[in-house]
Amino acid sequence: MNDKKKKPQKLKARLPRGFVDRSAADIRAVDEMTAKIREVYERYGFDPVETPLFEYTDALGKFLPDSDRPNEGVFSLQDDDEQWMSARYDLTAPLARHVAENFNDIQLPYRTYRAGYVFRNEKPGPGRFRQFMQFDADTVGAAGVQADAEMCMMMADTMEALGIARGDYVIRVNNRKVIDGVMESADLGGDENAGRRLGVLRAIDKLDKFGFEGVELLLGAGRKDESGDFTKGAGLTAQQIAFIVGYLKDDKVHPTSVLYAEGHGELQTIEQLVQAAGYGPDRIKIDPSVIRGLEYYTGPVFEAELQFAVTNEKGEKVVFGSVGGGGRYDGLVSRFMGQPVPATGFSIGVSRLMTALKNLGKLGMEELIAPVVVCVMDRDIESLGKYQQFTQALRHAGIRAEMYQGNKKNFGDQLKYADRRGSPLAIIQGGDERAQGLVQIKDLIEGKRLSGEIEDNTAWREARVAQVSVPETDLVAKVREMLAGQAEDRARS
Amino acid sequence: MNDKKKKPQKLKARLPRGFVDRSAADIRAVDEMTAKIREVYERYGFDPVETPLFEYTDALGKFLPDSDRPNEGVFSLQDDDEQWMSARYDLTAPLARHVAENFNDIQLPYRTYRAGYVFRNEKPGPGRFRQFMQFDADTVGAAGVQADAEMCMMMADTMEALGIARGDYVIRVNNRKVIDGVMESADLGGDENAGRRLGVLRAIDKLDKFGFEGVELLLGAGRKDESGDFTKGAGLTAQQIAFIVGYLKDDKVHPTSVLYAEGHGELQTIEQLVQAAGYGPDRIKIDPSVIRGLEYYTGPVFEAELQFAVTNEKGEKVVFGSVGGGGRYDGLVSRFMGQPVPATGFSIGVSRLMTALKNLGKLGMEELIAPVVVCVMDRDIESLGKYQQFTQALRHAGIRAEMYQGNKKNFGDQLKYADRRGSPLAIIQGGDERAQGLVQIKDLIEGKRLSGEIEDNTAWREARVAQVSVPETDLVAKVREMLAGQAEDRARS
Repeated sequence: MNDKKKKPQKLKARLPRGFVDRSAADIRAVDEMTAKIREVYERYGFDPVETPLFEYTDALGKFLPDSDRPNEGVFSLQDDDEQWMSARYDLTAPLARHVAENFNDIQLPYRTYRAGYVFRNEKPGPGRFRQFMQFDADTVGAAGVQADAEMCMMMADTMEALGIARGDYVIRVNNRKVIDGVMESADLGGDENAGRRLGVLRAIDKLDKFGFEGVELLLGAGRKDESGDFTKGAGLTAQQIAFIVGYLKDDKVHPTSVLYAEGHGELQTIEQLVQAAGYGPDRIKIDPSVIRGLEYYTGPVFEAELQFAVTNEKGEKVVFGSVGGGGRYDGLVSRFMGQPVPATGFSIGVSRLMTALKNLGKLGMEELIAPVVVCVMDRDIESLGKYQQFTQALRHAGIRAEMYQGNKKNFGDQLKYADRRGSPLAIIQGGDERAQGLVQIKDLIEGKRLSGEIEDNTAWREARVAQVSVPETDLVAKVREMLAGQAEDRARS
Repeated sequence: MNDKKKKPQKLKARLPRGFVDRSAADIRAVDEMTAKIREVYERYGFDPVETPLFEYTDALGKFLPDSDRPNEGVFSLQDDDEQWMSARYDLTAPLARHVAENFNDIQLPYRTYRAGYVFRNEKPGPGRFRQFMQFDADTVGAAGVQADAEMCMMMADTMEALGIARGDYVIRVNNRKVIDGVMESADLGGDENAGRRLGVLRAIDKLDKFGFEGVELLLGAGRKDESGDFTKGAGLTAQQIAFIVGYLKDDKVHPTSVLYAEGHGELQTIEQLVQAAGYGPDRIKIDPSVIRGLEYYTGPVFEAELQFAVTNEKGEKVVFGSVGGGGRYDGLVSRFMGQPVPATGFSIGVSRLMTALKNLGKLGMEELIAPVVVCVMDRDIESLGKYQQFTQALRHAGIRAEMYQGNKKNFGDQLKYADRRGSPLAIIQGGDERAQGLVQIKDLIEGKRLSGEIEDNTAWREARVAQVSVPETDLVAKVREMLAGQAEDRARS
């Protein structure tokens, strides 16, 4: 044991749990997607603003760290002056801090958007990461529900700008006041019922997943799932359950609560405004089952749902579901201020939306050609200088190109590299060609096609792959011509 | 005192020290700049890859946290399983971890780039932040100095792609082996002189700032600056100082060290390769005073320097200086591996480069028009529906537009909002116009021009500002026409 301890541990290359590296394909897909979203937000008059990754923990709201468990939910650390800082949990709380801190310099209403990473210190799972990207838009200082209506229209336009067909998405709208009013009418008002109300919200949120029977169980004693796991319910009486489920089944059941009436009126206004602007219920739909988990919502809440079917990990066909949501949060900025500051916003889950778009074949449509590889046949300075010169000439002509930088001296190995890289062409110049001022261009796509056709290994080696020899001075023009030919082939197939 | 303590503290909206929010103008400038850099890197055959913001602290290298001072230099926290994690300090150490972790799946040489935030837990100062952005490019698995030569050319091309004129920048190149060889020849080899060598590197790094006299002091006992602050020197003998300064003044002084010869040879190869590709010493220059502070460099080191003069905070004219640098770090990936993995890379300090480009007037040249503001004259549902309809019609025609969402009912206040926002046009429809199916378009730029010409306040009020009345159906066409007119005015002026 002691001996083992003394042995120096080898440094292990691994990421902390729940964190991932992002591939080139993923980065390009997200860039393509966020550019389209940004374009819509800009058209709606929104401007970018960004906050840093860390905030004082108290500014993030409810996640005040317990000194024994500083990382409950968020990643927290103490600054030199003993103050607690945390990695942001979402983009809304930092925006509220930003507005409050710069209140005198900000012109209200303040329309802004931002994409950025947020962090959750939770148990990671399949598809659940501890760092992920959100893309938010918010209007601060707009009290009227016309601002909420605009959020919904902007989300509908965003879905369509991303190529999601009308009918494949819907923006569902509800109002926290309506739900609170229903609960009030079901004798669930008052501070003493705060926990039960949370249970009710959680239960309704599962309507899509478990249906009315499931919701009834979750409103009552609880629900056991197929695996035998038991989820404790909200503990409502049979009468309360009947009232709430009755409301969910038929929103013509109107509770008498004042709060309910107010919320219901707001929803009607939203419906009328979006219809006046040409957005029917196929795009923006009032729906009493929309919940949105966050407690800070105070009015309308929205959810962008994708309605096409996908196959889940169990092989079942399910609707894709939510890719983002938001709502009105009139209390979040005013926590810092002596005055009320109304606000409404929307947040898109970037990876989830990207997964959806990949499913629909709506991403990565833009063609990115891998670099032309200039092979290194000789390693004396003069030859290297030549190869470098060819490479730079191609690049300066706007053609992606690289000189082979690896340690493989063998020509075949270098071609293998170019092939794995997906390179369209390889440039080759040996001593003989150099003496004559010639350079060879090998068509690797043509080569691939041939190797697919020819089964026999010897035949492959003997097969004439497309390769041309041109004067050095014609290199750029010939490469351009061959790339254009390949592009034409792709377009034709 | 006790009473004060009991009073609940009001939540204060403030950022932790050294962190800042980013404005729309800054975000747009950085986006414009990084897009241009990315374009060059892609042309050089580099592909994006990204790592998360957190890493295990040991993977970041030398910054192993002391449990009493876990945040020395980096922001660190303990994960649930007691392992230390840190916010990344640069983008190089995480890339090394990424390559080592995915070594079997990565095709070498591996050319990648990434832009991202890095964090330093240091005392913030003017222009020194605890979160800032770097833009890196690296080639891993390329042992030859041709890869370093390529880095230098790529940086030169990047500077020019950003609009920095030839002569206004230079890529300076040195070699850690050369410096180590010089120190070896000055009897500063061996582990026992590690501290002194670091002092020598720090002293040479100040050549630009303090000149040869300053460097001599820093190589010796130390240097007192104008404010009286004393910086302890490397403590070298007069002979050692003379040798090193002699080398810096004239690189024809060739120490006999083998390491020196190797490094010197590499620099010559780089010079020949870049010259073969057309990059003269006006762009890429071998320079013995380049140091690069980081200890992990093992071969060539580079620095991108802007040579035009700017005025510093003391009102003095100084050259702008470094905007990025890098070098060969053959040891960084192999820390995780049983085999050597050579690598070279370059890192751009994004905010610093942005400041430089702003100084040169090379950013924000793209015209971004503020949104057309649709005023809200009446607040009944029908009117609001109309305003919303106008707004959406403009947006769907690709015109930035917003409906006024604030609580100011007064028309003048809404115009004031539009004006502060920099809006080009305001759309107005009161009850009378609505009845006739008309809409007013007010030219806010024209209004501004007039108010500049007319000195008298009464005259201003009476002045006819450009305002037209058109049928609702002509709104989009007329707005487009008026915006085009404004663009023409701007182009003419």
